[in-house]
Amino acid sequence: MRLVSFHGDGGLRLGVETEAGVADVTEAAGDGSRASVRSLAGAGPEALLRVRQAAESTSDVVAVEQLRLAPAVPDAGKIICVGLNYRKHAAEGGMPVPERPIYFAKYANSLAASGEAVVIPAVAEKADYEVELVAVIGRRARKVSEDRALEHVFGYATGNDLSARDLQMRSSQWMYGKAIDGFAPLGPYVVTSDEVPDPQALDLRCSVNGDLRQDSNTRDMVFSVAELVSDLSQIMTLEPGDVVYTGTPEGVILGMPEQVWLQPGDEVVCEIQGLGRLVTPLVADPG
Amino acid sequence: MRLVSFHGDGGLRLGVETEAGVADVTEAAGDGSRASVRSLAGAGPEALLRVRQAAESTSDVVAVEQLRLAPAVPDAGKIICVGLNYRKHAAEGGMPVPERPIYFAKYANSLAASGEAVVIPAVAEKADYEVELVAVIGRRARKVSEDRALEHVFGYATGNDLSARDLQMRSSQWMYGKAIDGFAPLGPYVVTSDEVPDPQALDLRCSVNGDLRQDSNTRDMVFSVAELVSDLSQIMTLEPGDVVYTGTPEGVILGMPEQVWLQPGDEVVCEIQGLGRLVTPLVADPG
Repeated sequence: MRLVSFHGDGGLRLGVETEAGVADVTEAAGDGSRASVRSLAGAGPEALLRVRQAAESTSDVVAVEQLRLAPAVPDAGKIICVGLNYRKHAAEGGMPVPERPIYFAKYANSLAASGEAVVIPAVAEKADYEVELVAVIGRRARKVSEDRALEHVFGYATGNDLSARDLQMRSSQWMYGKAIDGFAPLGPYVVTSDEVPDPQALDLRCSVNGDLRQDSNTRDMVFSVAELVSDLSQIMTLEPGDVVYTGTPEGVILGMPEQVWLQPGDEVVCEIQGLGRLVTPLVADPG
Repeated sequence: MRLVSFHGDGGLRLGVETEAGVADVTEAAGDGSRASVRSLAGAGPEALLRVRQAAESTSDVVAVEQLRLAPAVPDAGKIICVGLNYRKHAAEGGMPVPERPIYFAKYANSLAASGEAVVIPAVAEKADYEVELVAVIGRRARKVSEDRALEHVFGYATGNDLSARDLQMRSSQWMYGKAIDGFAPLGPYVVTSDEVPDPQALDLRCSVNGDLRQDSNTRDMVFSVAELVSDLSQIMTLEPGDVVYTGTPEGVILGMPEQVWLQPGDEVVCEIQGLGRLVTPLVADPG
């Protein structure tokens, strides 16, 4: 099921995208209250079934192009990112393949929808893209084994871990070049786990103004989604609606011999097999 | 004004601590809805005045000892931490004084109240304390100057940036040793900014089982609260209820010649001038 979050009258709405269009399931999914991806992620299989039935039984649908999309998990809890998690990406950066996962954070201010313009802030000179498979946590996870970890993943989405390399590298910790407003585009939708039988066998690509830059497969990941979820859950409780950006493959600007950074006017398109196209137009800082 | 968050019937309550005891201002502060520190931080000076008047006009108070405290900002948004932000602490770690602030993140899972037991997870072998002045954001901040930055600070609290040094150092990014469940105790209360005329002139101390370990003053900070808020606001929008842990002074276990790490049974007390005592009993991982 493709879960679409969008702006409607009176706030955020939750929809299911079918071949006929998007069915609004905000009330059906909420069982009395208004549903979101986050609430649905934590609500269990019955709620998901109710949503599926509601979407299938209505003819009241809207073309997705007519909606103003929200980030795919607009009310995400933790936004956890993983660095250097593809072998060839580590190599292009001249870094060793990490022995343990490298985590850093973004916050909700960084979320952006597909199609939403993202400002390159005035202080950032080296903006770069990173297409990433994003896992959305479902059932609460605390000290789960690798074997059981994927049972705690509600779904997947396409993400772009936009980065300002100059700000990222100005100190030992990357956050200042990562946690920028709008720098974590996520979408266009969340695909539930049942439709992603193997998260480690997905093609993923990123292009800038139509020029293909990243073209890999999640099988090149150093630490799998299951390993990441299990590892994180040893020290923190993962909650429904938390998201994990699982790292990017080779092909970022940082790894190129001639580095032409992202500019206002550029359009970045990230695409993951079965998870849709995430479009990010970049714009100048209005000051 | 001292704002106390505590657990009551039906959820979190907001109180004001006066000499007579704690007055519950959850409804008075909310103007129809239930207030929290976060909502109050964003509500402006009239709401604050209403809360003050409500607290002064009631005789219905409870002794603070009778309350089960919540973290001082239980619904904190971003939890931003600053590393190596005291000159002598950088020196004890053998690190240069940073030229730019070093930021990293925790999430809401790390918040803990004063008096709340914190589990040292089984995978962590080198638990350490860090007393820190925590600034609570009030008015939204986007590209604010240093001169105006403190106008966006709603109040201050005592924080403990608990750290598992082995996990913190297992990769280049510190998060895995920082964003542990319960590892960001905050409290006992938030003191509004009007009662903290100079955040750069506060004594702060940390003791373990009564043994004084850290004893410094916020004037030793490398980057002031105003500088940090201004710097952060160049790349991200700071929102009411966001909190900034502003770094710790010298005296952590990491900097000692003989490192005896925190153990279950230890009690850490962090104290900042005018901001109260934050008590953290450490307990073993129940598995």
